[in-house]
Amino acid sequence: MKVLVINCGSSSLKYQLIDMTTESVLATGLVERVTFSDGIITMKRFDGKKYQAEHQDYPNHKVALHAAIDTLLDPEYGVIKSMTEINAVGHRVVHGGEKFTRSVLIDDEVEKAIRDTFELAPLHNPPNMMGIEASIELMPGTPNVAVFDTTFHTTIPNYAYIYALPYSMYEKYGIRKYGFHGTSHYYVSRRAAAMLGKPLEETKIITCHMGNGSSITAVKGGKSVETTMGFTPLEGVAMGTRCGSIDPAVVPFMMEKEDLTPREVDTLMNKKSGVLGISGVSNDFRELDEAASHGNERAELALEVFSYKVKKVIGEYSAVLDYPDAIVFTAGIGENSASIRNRILSGLENFGIKVDQEKNKIRGQEIDIATPDSKIRILVIPTNEELTIARDTKEICETEVKLRASINV
Amino acid sequence: MKVLVINCGSSSLKYQLIDMTTESVLATGLVERVTFSDGIITMKRFDGKKYQAEHQDYPNHKVALHAAIDTLLDPEYGVIKSMTEINAVGHRVVHGGEKFTRSVLIDDEVEKAIRDTFELAPLHNPPNMMGIEASIELMPGTPNVAVFDTTFHTTIPNYAYIYALPYSMYEKYGIRKYGFHGTSHYYVSRRAAAMLGKPLEETKIITCHMGNGSSITAVKGGKSVETTMGFTPLEGVAMGTRCGSIDPAVVPFMMEKEDLTPREVDTLMNKKSGVLGISGVSNDFRELDEAASHGNERAELALEVFSYKVKKVIGEYSAVLDYPDAIVFTAGIGENSASIRNRILSGLENFGIKVDQEKNKIRGQEIDIATPDSKIRILVIPTNEELTIARDTKEICETEVKLRASINV
Repeated sequence: MKVLVINCGSSSLKYQLIDMTTESVLATGLVERVTFSDGIITMKRFDGKKYQAEHQDYPNHKVALHAAIDTLLDPEYGVIKSMTEINAVGHRVVHGGEKFTRSVLIDDEVEKAIRDTFELAPLHNPPNMMGIEASIELMPGTPNVAVFDTTFHTTIPNYAYIYALPYSMYEKYGIRKYGFHGTSHYYVSRRAAAMLGKPLEETKIITCHMGNGSSITAVKGGKSVETTMGFTPLEGVAMGTRCGSIDPAVVPFMMEKEDLTPREVDTLMNKKSGVLGISGVSNDFRELDEAASHGNERAELALEVFSYKVKKVIGEYSAVLDYPDAIVFTAGIGENSASIRNRILSGLENFGIKVDQEKNKIRGQEIDIATPDSKIRILVIPTNEELTIARDTKEICETEVKLRASINV
Repeated sequence: MKVLVINCGSSSLKYQLIDMTTESVLATGLVERVTFSDGIITMKRFDGKKYQAEHQDYPNHKVALHAAIDTLLDPEYGVIKSMTEINAVGHRVVHGGEKFTRSVLIDDEVEKAIRDTFELAPLHNPPNMMGIEASIELMPGTPNVAVFDTTFHTTIPNYAYIYALPYSMYEKYGIRKYGFHGTSHYYVSRRAAAMLGKPLEETKIITCHMGNGSSITAVKGGKSVETTMGFTPLEGVAMGTRCGSIDPAVVPFMMEKEDLTPREVDTLMNKKSGVLGISGVSNDFRELDEAASHGNERAELALEVFSYKVKKVIGEYSAVLDYPDAIVFTAGIGENSASIRNRILSGLENFGIKVDQEKNKIRGQEIDIATPDSKIRILVIPTNEELTIARDTKEICETEVKLRASINV
């Protein structure tokens, strides 16, 4: 069974074709500047061979998906001979609201329910939906599955997801904590249990997904019980361009001082803040490291603020879990930045955390970087959201498609 | 030396006269409904004798302070014979901005500097200033000292007080974490060190001030290194009517949905949220306890949300301090609610916290309620902000007044 995984942003389409028999990636690609002119498409085959085309226009996600499928069919660079070899399509959908507590086979009702969540994720869910519509049009009859960033967090208890606002805000508008990056936290918490050699049900793990957006989750017995992102992906730790949690009274204060509309202050907090806002240098942690090493004090401050906030959440979730077995670092920064991991984990010796500096330097593999006498294990685990989406897609197709077929007979 | 301690709210004036030779309270009183009609003044003398007068008008804080001093001079209920027995006045001032890193003798320059902070605390500092002006007018020649809620927190490092917003927000408007309840956190952290029998410099203490407003502070070697309240007293844990920290993106979302101005959303978050907002019942924890015990699910939820947020901060600050010696509970709820303390501290056995249920029931005294094998001590300590203000006032008068006199000679 071959599953095509699609992740549509407002002007991008990421795709990956996975052979689920062996769980091996056949090809992975990206269409950029969708809806703009001068688009770019790049694709990398399992054997490393690369395809690239520039200066093409992808006016919408349907054209972009068509071009993506063409790369997979390409006589020279492709990996399949016919579109029918794609047995199912798995779509990343950011927000599932309270409606979706697991991945689902997409039908008309599901499409409508996803549209109902647009208000909760106006930047993310509409492009996700465009990918779904394009897929249905281009590959009629092929099952499509929606895998949500939020479903892993639907096990969070109500005292953790309710904000201390008038209760009507929850009842009228669904304002509550939802949490994101669910497929990543799900994937690495399973890998962590395997590395610990412990039944998943008995594990208590803190998973730190640190990339362009960062979120941290407390996973108890395999279930998410708390996470830093909230109603939107703005809450929690500071990020590349997002402020994370701040005094909420600062929001109306800034609006009055700078004469900002609600949308403008939202943009300020989502796009102009985070380590970029503090440093004035970049939202890229490698550039910040570089600037800090050349004496840029605000770049140094930005790195300190970010690391300190992650450190605090590790403490916080250690209380939520009544002391964890392990802390996992994953995603761009979590997997690759030994220096950020060091900043976060330093000064926690009494707390039970000790890092092996040599192991901390090793990159690109699953590894326990804690010293033998560290009470808490420190695991670096490359995440794999696409594989998680593909696995869910396969499972749902195998069970639900069969089930529906048997009902129709 | 007798010190009058004054704490002015927008429509109230609290006062306490303390004999600093013995640090004993001679009288404590409250003027209510200042600036409204039908004011009330109540005063309680050291021997328990109570004075009360209703239906008087206190059109401003000067009239209110005059009436307060009259109660102290009253032939039947009073404790002094002449106003000149008041050797100094200590004023609680909520916000000292970045300008005030310690308590100060009030002169023209200080008055101006306090006025410059009005914007940072528009609800608190103007009435505080009215008390200062009234005191100067009514008792010319008597030294006045300003004691700020914020100064204890001026030792918080920059990576903890800078928000991940554009840095210009800090430079232009002073938007950063300041912290509040400083005199309380200061007082109980000193008492805690004494109870631990450890030099203050070696202690690591988490102080939980939980009352109408609640804030938690990490105190290392006697210095505040982190606290939950921020730019304003809205940030941090949920409170009686304040929401505490939420996803900041919720603020513009609510404004658009409910068509609210910046001021209106500020009021919603400060006055209509917290445990009152969740429960719809009350901001009073005793009433919530009562309602929850009768099966009111939202009252129960409000208590759970509050306790869970405090529990999380205890974990957070345990990381900040690299494991604390002790946790202190103080103020209305912290000192009196055994059930809230239990909710907060339950399920932390592996974390190193064990509560002695019998000791937890004891009220009104300094007590260690942890079991002997608890790794972290749990201390209940009645706070005394007035005594802290009076001590600062005495010290500053003795040193600075003498110093200025010597310069003038």
